[in-house]
Amino acid sequence: MIPALPRVDVSDRIARLRAALADEGADAILVTRLPNIRYLTGFTGSAAMALITATDGLFVTDGRYREQSAEQLGAAGCPLEIAIGLGADDQRDHLRRVADRAGVGRLLLEAGGVTWAQARDLADRWFPDLEVLPGDPIVETLRMVKEPAEIERIRAACHIADDALASLLERLGTGITERAFALELEVAMRERGADGNSFDPIVASGPNGAKPHARPSDRVVGRGELVVIDFGCIVDGYCSDMTRTVSVGEPSPEARHMWEVVHEAQAAGRDAVAAGVEAAAVDRVCREIIAAAGWAEAFAHGTGHGVGIEIHEDPRVSQASSATLLPGHIVTVEPGVYLPGIGGVRLEDTVAVTEGGCDPLTAFPKHLVV
Amino acid sequence: MIPALPRVDVSDRIARLRAALADEGADAILVTRLPNIRYLTGFTGSAAMALITATDGLFVTDGRYREQSAEQLGAAGCPLEIAIGLGADDQRDHLRRVADRAGVGRLLLEAGGVTWAQARDLADRWFPDLEVLPGDPIVETLRMVKEPAEIERIRAACHIADDALASLLERLGTGITERAFALELEVAMRERGADGNSFDPIVASGPNGAKPHARPSDRVVGRGELVVIDFGCIVDGYCSDMTRTVSVGEPSPEARHMWEVVHEAQAAGRDAVAAGVEAAAVDRVCREIIAAAGWAEAFAHGTGHGVGIEIHEDPRVSQASSATLLPGHIVTVEPGVYLPGIGGVRLEDTVAVTEGGCDPLTAFPKHLVV
Repeated sequence: MIPALPRVDVSDRIARLRAALADEGADAILVTRLPNIRYLTGFTGSAAMALITATDGLFVTDGRYREQSAEQLGAAGCPLEIAIGLGADDQRDHLRRVADRAGVGRLLLEAGGVTWAQARDLADRWFPDLEVLPGDPIVETLRMVKEPAEIERIRAACHIADDALASLLERLGTGITERAFALELEVAMRERGADGNSFDPIVASGPNGAKPHARPSDRVVGRGELVVIDFGCIVDGYCSDMTRTVSVGEPSPEARHMWEVVHEAQAAGRDAVAAGVEAAAVDRVCREIIAAAGWAEAFAHGTGHGVGIEIHEDPRVSQASSATLLPGHIVTVEPGVYLPGIGGVRLEDTVAVTEGGCDPLTAFPKHLVV
Repeated sequence: MIPALPRVDVSDRIARLRAALADEGADAILVTRLPNIRYLTGFTGSAAMALITATDGLFVTDGRYREQSAEQLGAAGCPLEIAIGLGADDQRDHLRRVADRAGVGRLLLEAGGVTWAQARDLADRWFPDLEVLPGDPIVETLRMVKEPAEIERIRAACHIADDALASLLERLGTGITERAFALELEVAMRERGADGNSFDPIVASGPNGAKPHARPSDRVVGRGELVVIDFGCIVDGYCSDMTRTVSVGEPSPEARHMWEVVHEAQAAGRDAVAAGVEAAAVDRVCREIIAAAGWAEAFAHGTGHGVGIEIHEDPRVSQASSATLLPGHIVTVEPGVYLPGIGGVRLEDTVAVTEGGCDPLTAFPKHLVV
């Protein structure tokens, strides 16, 4: 099911990070957020730090990951020296040694990626001789524009999700519970090669659909009911995200109207996506259509978000977003309407931004009645 | 499969938090870590904050969770007022209103539960008139001692894991891959009522077992090989954790020796668990047995950790731990030996600490040859 994927090579990423560091006027950054560690080094374990200086660098993990880190950094072309720190003090000493060797004075931490307690500890006890500064999400900013090898992974994850849903849609008419359908969907994605879910799937039928983030329950999906199905998977570290809302048999006229309004909003939002467009403008396109139907308050979330190593990343597609879309950004377009006691509709695609528009990565058809 | 579980009532937890706050000399705490939010309020969504003062309090979430928060806080007996903040400014205003009303001067944040960026924002922009202080993990400390309703959930999760493994062990001899076995294990737990995995299962055969945190691969499990199987599930928000290492058919004498040493260490560690015992002493018992076999360096992780709403919580069972075990603590005992190029052995139980010893919650038999 998964096509041959081009190799991910991280060496250029570290070069781009160094350029960004120079722009920030810092000598080094201590990367602690695991999605950023993965992006920069290829390492997929649960504990590591990377110190990147203008010309030097060190990857530190613990004894559990001695073999794995050597394998993964090697495969990804990561140029960093690897140190195994058997305890916190040992890890600190390794990092200090390289900071000294590189003459680091001003060290950025990832202010959005360390806890306040960690920041205090790093500044006061690990690096008392350095100027430790709260850094912006520099690596996250690099991650926004996806390389072809990344887009292919997200495309493969989207394709698996499309195919899994196609294989199971008729199961909705068999008296299945939300929970059982969610499990079948997860298994179908895994059997097609997914590494796992990109998030716990939402299968929300009837009134449950009014909760945008409902968890699958033991409720049996009934005929003529709206069912919101929001799900995705991970392929080699990259996420997919798609929502479809369907009804087994004809729904009520009100439900059909909700669906048609959201369908129009989603199509308009997707059509608005292009390089050079403000993300907030995409949100506005969707929001105005829903507001014109009288449901402004019932669309109580942003229109979308970036997708990549994390299921929610920058750029955000919302009223508050200041981002301008660029080629290689991958975002969702997912307006919704939620009416307490009645139900909800959300339709969502994951798309890759291109010069003239977008490349939809999720392709499952949008039909209300199945 | 899941027995009737006693209701979780959170009202006493907030009372205990207030007592702890008074001990800290603070007027209020802003709880932001989601596992702590769940513990204090019953809310399971992905975004919320709770301000708890000596006599007052507020739960704030966003528009997606209007219905869910009302349902869950009501069901859990949480006495907090609920506010829906449609954006960050709106949430801030709700919190300021209650902080003013309660006369808060000294406000604790969860220093280990907010990022440095969030802490700066909260201190400088949300609460510039308050003394905003880095708080210790107060809620995590409350969470260490489990109530009977919590122990029953963890017991149910452990029982599901036991039963799922029993149903599948013979599949290891059928030429199955690590990845396929992991998926079958996950499905078997879900079919028995689990809400999901407590972590991605580890199924590591032959040389892969030398990586303590290996991910399941497409390697076929061979006969006479050690296979490390580390997995768990979630029942109503509470985790289980168990590891077994088995061989389909007789393994090499060296593999058998490794297994027997780890088996002895694990049994001794588990037997050492009791209220009043230092967690570090349990680690020492395991470590000495493995060191005596010449493998001190090959046991490159701690002996165990607390289990509850999170798969890894306090108390830690390690050389560095300063915890003393108390009745109601739930911890794992999981020594291991890892030999690069050869393989690994880990055996793990989750146990509830009692006055005289411990109550093993995972009960699957430990046999090397299956």
